[in-house]
Amino acid sequence: LEEMPAIFNAYRKFIDEELSSIISSRELYLYNMMKYHMGWIDTEGNLTQSNSGKFLRATLCLLAAVSTGSDYKKALPIAASIELIHNFSLIHDDIQDGDRKRRHRPTVWTIWGKPQAINAGTAMKVLANLSVFRLEQQAVSPEKQLEVFKLLDESCLKMLEGQYLDISFEDRDEVDLDEYIDMIDKKTASLIEGALQIGAVINIDKEKIAPFKKFGNYLGLAFQIRDDILGIWGSVDKTGKPSANDLRKKKKSFPIVYSFCESKGELKNKLKKIYAQKKIDEPSVKQILSYFDALGVYDYCEQKCRHYYDLAVREIKNLPIDKKSSKHFEDISKFLIIRDF
Amino acid sequence: LEEMPAIFNAYRKFIDEELSSIISSRELYLYNMMKYHMGWIDTEGNLTQSNSGKFLRATLCLLAAVSTGSDYKKALPIAASIELIHNFSLIHDDIQDGDRKRRHRPTVWTIWGKPQAINAGTAMKVLANLSVFRLEQQAVSPEKQLEVFKLLDESCLKMLEGQYLDISFEDRDEVDLDEYIDMIDKKTASLIEGALQIGAVINIDKEKIAPFKKFGNYLGLAFQIRDDILGIWGSVDKTGKPSANDLRKKKKSFPIVYSFCESKGELKNKLKKIYAQKKIDEPSVKQILSYFDALGVYDYCEQKCRHYYDLAVREIKNLPIDKKSSKHFEDISKFLIIRDF
Repeated sequence: LEEMPAIFNAYRKFIDEELSSIISSRELYLYNMMKYHMGWIDTEGNLTQSNSGKFLRATLCLLAAVSTGSDYKKALPIAASIELIHNFSLIHDDIQDGDRKRRHRPTVWTIWGKPQAINAGTAMKVLANLSVFRLEQQAVSPEKQLEVFKLLDESCLKMLEGQYLDISFEDRDEVDLDEYIDMIDKKTASLIEGALQIGAVINIDKEKIAPFKKFGNYLGLAFQIRDDILGIWGSVDKTGKPSANDLRKKKKSFPIVYSFCESKGELKNKLKKIYAQKKIDEPSVKQILSYFDALGVYDYCEQKCRHYYDLAVREIKNLPIDKKSSKHFEDISKFLIIRDF
Repeated sequence: LEEMPAIFNAYRKFIDEELSSIISSRELYLYNMMKYHMGWIDTEGNLTQSNSGKFLRATLCLLAAVSTGSDYKKALPIAASIELIHNFSLIHDDIQDGDRKRRHRPTVWTIWGKPQAINAGTAMKVLANLSVFRLEQQAVSPEKQLEVFKLLDESCLKMLEGQYLDISFEDRDEVDLDEYIDMIDKKTASLIEGALQIGAVINIDKEKIAPFKKFGNYLGLAFQIRDDILGIWGSVDKTGKPSANDLRKKKKSFPIVYSFCESKGELKNKLKKIYAQKKIDEPSVKQILSYFDALGVYDYCEQKCRHYYDLAVREIKNLPIDKKSSKHFEDISKFLIIRDF
């Protein structure tokens, strides 16, 4: 985590404490599943310090609050909310994808079974909402609390629409690039937009938060394309997943969508044939990677990621914030598109 | 539905319209899964009029609102919310239990798969929250809207805690009666309490809604025990499920929990042995039913159901409402404990 911008480490402890105080105040064993997922305990309930993720969304939320004039403390409850929403989506996502590992540890469903994992994920979403009421202690008005609720649940619904599209793509022969961008706009950009909007709205008029949404949208698109690049060309040491993992899982991620669109004739038929196999074996993985090389897929993905990054950075200039905050947003944006984990 | 108190039919159309306007305003195919679950369309998207359920919780919510002095219209958005929460829990419950039928039709997961059904259920929960914002058009203050949100999400979290307990009971040898009552208090009474509380709180001070919670709690317990009775001695024509279905599914429902607690020596061993089987065959079902007869399980369950019914009816007298509304609550309470569907 040394490579991350310093602001992540500056806030990490406070976000972790806020999340912990929300979840740990509950007694039932159900909440142990959440604590395990967050990396705080092992399956026996013993304290551990595992990877809790980057807290990207919570960090963006706090920064949006600070950049619009308040102490980061004021936004901690909602930074926790958005992080809980992200994490509930991961618990469900692991069930939906049948993924057995997350952040180098067994996923919740592999330990407690799918029925309990479904339930724990949904309960985490409800905790995310209840966390918003902690704004009362930060003297945030009822009107502002309601604005937060609306933005939070609209972002969450948008994310679930994206998840619907992503799952539905699995059964489809072909997906075009516009459909793919629409899907990640919903699935990934939603919460990043939401994080920035709720952080800003507790301080400034809701009519003025549009640039935060726009910035978050571009950042989210760049972030997801980078994720998709790492899903093919990332290394297991860094990402926790073997390289070309998305190919083995036959995910319709950006590189594969592009290669389907870009290829023609026999090459296209070969690609389709491989993807139509029940299981993609290692020779097939190598084959696809060589097609990717021939089609220039890596470069195209990098270029597209850069495109949204440029739009995001340009949008930072439209935010009603000071230079110091702008610099933080720029650093985060840059990190997100060059990260290898 | 003729046997139901008239008030159910008086409100049914309005509740249905409110739910429909919430779900149908959304375009993505994702929402078709919800419309299908609600009984409005078939799997092809054609309009149908299937069973949407009793709308018990929505009806109680509207009655609580009317009984405390407002028009039912004012409470329609939140009546829809509580009904959406109930229905999202059914979509997830069917996945968790592996149930293939609900209200005489194939369950959502059997048609669209478990990943999509998990997602559609969670999305329905989020829609339930967004529906609360429709209170704005009913001139409900921001403070009151927040009180609704809090009650709604606290009820929902309590329900999920109950669901956690219910699933965890499956892996346990024995469950005692107190644990069972605690479980249904959380799993079932939660939303019935919640329905009454949110209906009342939009009109009266939140410090005064405690009797609604208490009434809902007793009613919920009686309701669930009646449900458990029907799970053993109900008929397929009425409930849509074969009689003794809960035995075949090895559910730790009230009759079986009681029989485990009440039986001793050889009878207890026999019961345990049957329940330890992987699958309970028809001769075993008959065997258990004869043990139930010997132990007087049916009578005990009826008596316990009646006990909570009596407490519920007594609590109606503590509600700050007029006689007409009291009568409605009494009629519903009575119906819930004598219903055979």
